[in-house]
Amino acid sequence: MMRTRPLKVALLGCGVVGSEVARIMTTHADDLAARIGAPIELAGVAVRRPSKVREGIPAELITTDATALVKRGDIDVVVEVIGGIEPARTLITTAFEHGASVVSANKALLAQDGAALHAAADENDKDLYYEAAVAGAIPLIRPLRESLAGDKVNRVLGIVNGTTNFILDKMDSTGAGYQEALDEATALGYAEADPTADVEGFDAAAKAAILAGIAFHTRVRLDDVHREGMTEVTAADFASAKEMGCTIKLLAICERSADGASVTARVHPAMIPLSHPLASVRGAYNAVFVESDAAGQLMFYGPGAGGAPTASAVLGDLVAVCRNRLNGATGPGESAYAALTVSPMGDVVTRYHISLDVADKPGVLAQVATVFAEHGVSIDTVRQQGRQDGDGEASLVVVTHRASDASLSGTVEALRKLDTVRGVASIMRVEGE
Amino acid sequence: MMRTRPLKVALLGCGVVGSEVARIMTTHADDLAARIGAPIELAGVAVRRPSKVREGIPAELITTDATALVKRGDIDVVVEVIGGIEPARTLITTAFEHGASVVSANKALLAQDGAALHAAADENDKDLYYEAAVAGAIPLIRPLRESLAGDKVNRVLGIVNGTTNFILDKMDSTGAGYQEALDEATALGYAEADPTADVEGFDAAAKAAILAGIAFHTRVRLDDVHREGMTEVTAADFASAKEMGCTIKLLAICERSADGASVTARVHPAMIPLSHPLASVRGAYNAVFVESDAAGQLMFYGPGAGGAPTASAVLGDLVAVCRNRLNGATGPGESAYAALTVSPMGDVVTRYHISLDVADKPGVLAQVATVFAEHGVSIDTVRQQGRQDGDGEASLVVVTHRASDASLSGTVEALRKLDTVRGVASIMRVEGE
Ligand SMILES: NC(=O)c1ccc[n+]([C@@H]2O[C@H](COP(=O)([O-])OP(=O)(O)OC[C@H]3O[C@@H](n4cnc5c(N)ncnc54)[C@H](OP(=O)(O)O)[C@@H]3O)[C@@H](O)[C@H]2O)c1
Ligand SMILES: NC(=O)c1ccc[n+]([C@@H]2O[C@H](COP(=O)([O-])OP(=O)(O)OC[C@H]3O[C@@H](n4cnc5c(N)ncnc54)[C@H](OP(=O)(O)O)[C@@H]3O)[C@@H](O)[C@H]2O)c1
Repeated sequence: MMRTRPLKVALLGCGVVGSEVARIMTTHADDLAARIGAPIELAGVAVRRPSKVREGIPAELITTDATALVKRGDIDVVVEVIGGIEPARTLITTAFEHGASVVSANKALLAQDGAALHAAADENDKDLYYEAAVAGAIPLIRPLRESLAGDKVNRVLGIVNGTTNFILDKMDSTGAGYQEALDEATALGYAEADPTADVEGFDAAAKAAILAGIAFHTRVRLDDVHREGMTEVTAADFASAKEMGCTIKLLAICERSADGASVTARVHPAMIPLSHPLASVRGAYNAVFVESDAAGQLMFYGPGAGGAPTASAVLGDLVAVCRNRLNGATGPGESAYAALTVSPMGDVVTRYHISLDVADKPGVLAQVATVFAEHGVSIDTVRQQGRQDGDGEASLVVVTHRASDASLSGTVEALRKLDTVRGVASIMRVEGE
Repeated sequence: MMRTRPLKVALLGCGVVGSEVARIMTTHADDLAARIGAPIELAGVAVRRPSKVREGIPAELITTDATALVKRGDIDVVVEVIGGIEPARTLITTAFEHGASVVSANKALLAQDGAALHAAADENDKDLYYEAAVAGAIPLIRPLRESLAGDKVNRVLGIVNGTTNFILDKMDSTGAGYQEALDEATALGYAEADPTADVEGFDAAAKAAILAGIAFHTRVRLDDVHREGMTEVTAADFASAKEMGCTIKLLAICERSADGASVTARVHPAMIPLSHPLASVRGAYNAVFVESDAAGQLMFYGPGAGGAPTASAVLGDLVAVCRNRLNGATGPGESAYAALTVSPMGDVVTRYHISLDVADKPGVLAQVATVFAEHGVSIDTVRQQGRQDGDGEASLVVVTHRASDASLSGTVEALRKLDTVRGVASIMRVEGE
């Protein structure tokens, strides 16, 4: 049964993820061979700094010439764990042209250039797998693409960034402010020195684009994803959330419209009810909720990052790609046949929690309510609170029924023009109800 | 790209699951065709009662001769949703012999005869897929077999039976006794008229055998699974669990031993801490926790049964099997290469919560503690309570450290022989810590 000639694997990058991939390929060689039906052999490892000591990797495999490695012509599978756009992109397309299939963990690249990379894979009749690019170890791409291939996915709602979940969880449980929680995340290694990609939602937006594309069989570009970071979430927002029986999470939300003809993808902080399974996702864990016609509500939960978890996903793909190769076949590629319209944020329909600072005098509520009504935004509850400091200001907390983001923006713009509205303290969407 | 000649599907059974499979095949025909790369056609539907009206299914497709249908020779995929051992088993092997691949939802059959069925599939170079057999809509077989193919799974711990989870959840939240909660489950359609397969753990044991086999790449037979039902769980047990910060769930547990050389599979009620993600699985939902070397802890959650959710899983398999067929390939089959020893229950190591009725006099605790020590079972905590009724009895609640089931059984046997021990009120394992 077992083929004895090994399949050759080129590893591009040997950092946090790559070193774990190499380690497991060595320590679990027998298991991998049995599961694939042929042994696999590490044929070369491309890095930037050749002199760095890399435990367990024979020095003669190390090269700084990644291009020459992918061009060798005898490589079966290229594992790209360098990250970033270039040289990763060129290396992957070169790999396809030279007969290799590719496994990648590169969400930034897949979100930006997924269509072109898939086209290159198809042209050369090769596989492009990237389970590790979204939510680390959590099987998500394969369940969406294969397990749910006979179903119609309507919604993907998830916590797909561990750094921001760690920070928000900290703020929720300790009452800390954003900066304090970020500092702790940095100290513990959960946030990078420059946390921009995480806290501004870029990382989550890349994942949302990838998930939406797969869930809806429609090409969703990174630019199609509405993105708001979580740097402006305050301890006061958490207090408001608690009053609503909610907590705050940075969510990636991909939705099919009610008429089924269009989809939206977005990343922003949102209140979700404490009873929602995503509300209890602690620390740096990730979890993704999927709603479909027939299956109903599914949730996938696990570590969203880290060397070993990410390597687990890479190796699962490696086994699949090697098996396909032995079968002379390829797995399911990009499927964008549905070609649904990707609508802008204004078309998103959800609920809103709005805190206003208003003048503490009669008639203000009526004025405010009129503005909401004029914009077709129906109010669910209003809570009016006089302030202790007697400065003539009060606060007004409005929770709306479902309304479009465009109507809400129009409402807020008009509210800002009212003399009696001193300021809009916060606007937060309410999801998962 | 698209092949125009349709793939032919024979549906065996058109009950709760089968009728949903047929419905979705019709309503989602275009999507399925696009995802497969060829249209699929319902070529025949085998049932027991031909005269029953079946909405949406052309009468000329209905047959009571399932054997003739699978022998037709032009069938690409047979979907078996009859259930039970025969005729399902013979129909599946006949299907392979006549050139079809098979998708089944039949846990009872797969757990009992999985090895023979896989062998028949292999011999005929056909696929046998059965995602729907375990935990309904929740992708579990595919993630274990494919996503984690590059990892080493050490533990699978899950709620895989919705009926019993509904009953236990009810007992927990309302303080109801077993019978009362069962009656409500029956009235609401969550329990069948004869609930034996569910409440005695047979259904969960079948799923445990299937999961253990896939997780450990080892053949695990239904007889290898230790099985205890949940009919003897009492309101008092829930009260004890609460005192421990726990709840009670019927768990399917598949574990690799510490030395890695053997595995165990079991189904029984157990206490788990309220902080464990499985503790908050409500109603008839299922959830499965998977622990592996590299990925760490993953959880999969969703509806474990029902016509539409189960059909979703069947259709995901159908798409995969059709794709394989167009590729002239087969997907990953049974993988039992690891051939680990399947150890008996006595070898299982876990913690225990034991309630004893004892004589209310000095020295009893010392006697009891000596028995535990003699059997090598180390005690974590003991709580001694005099009774209000002054009948000279007290109760003693012992929670142990981790010990083998064999040592615990020996301990309990010896305890029963002590004059001062009037009775062993309950023994419950404590998991998930
Ligand atoms: N880390 C995670 O938890 C995680 C989770 C999910 C996905 N990912 C993705 O996995 C990928 C890798 O992440 P990582 O954390 O492993 O990154 P990393 O630790 O920074 O490692 C990057 C590796 O690429 C090598 N490299 C950089 N530029 C190169 C070039 N031009 N030619 C050849 N090699 C080059 C580096 O070489 P030197 O060793 O010589 O510096 C290093 O070995 C990224 O796409 C990331 O988004 C990571
Ligand atoms: N129901 C669930 O939620 C669920 C969940 C997971 C897995 N499953 C599995 O899915 C399978 C089907 O379950 P189900 O709930 O759909 O069962 P069901 O409602 O009882 O349906 C069984 C179907 O098989 C037909 N049938 C019975 N004996 C037959 C025979 N000898 N030849 C041809 N057809 C025959 C019946 O015909 P008639 O219609 O004429 O009676 C009926 O259409 C079982 O293996 C079950 O374990 C079910």
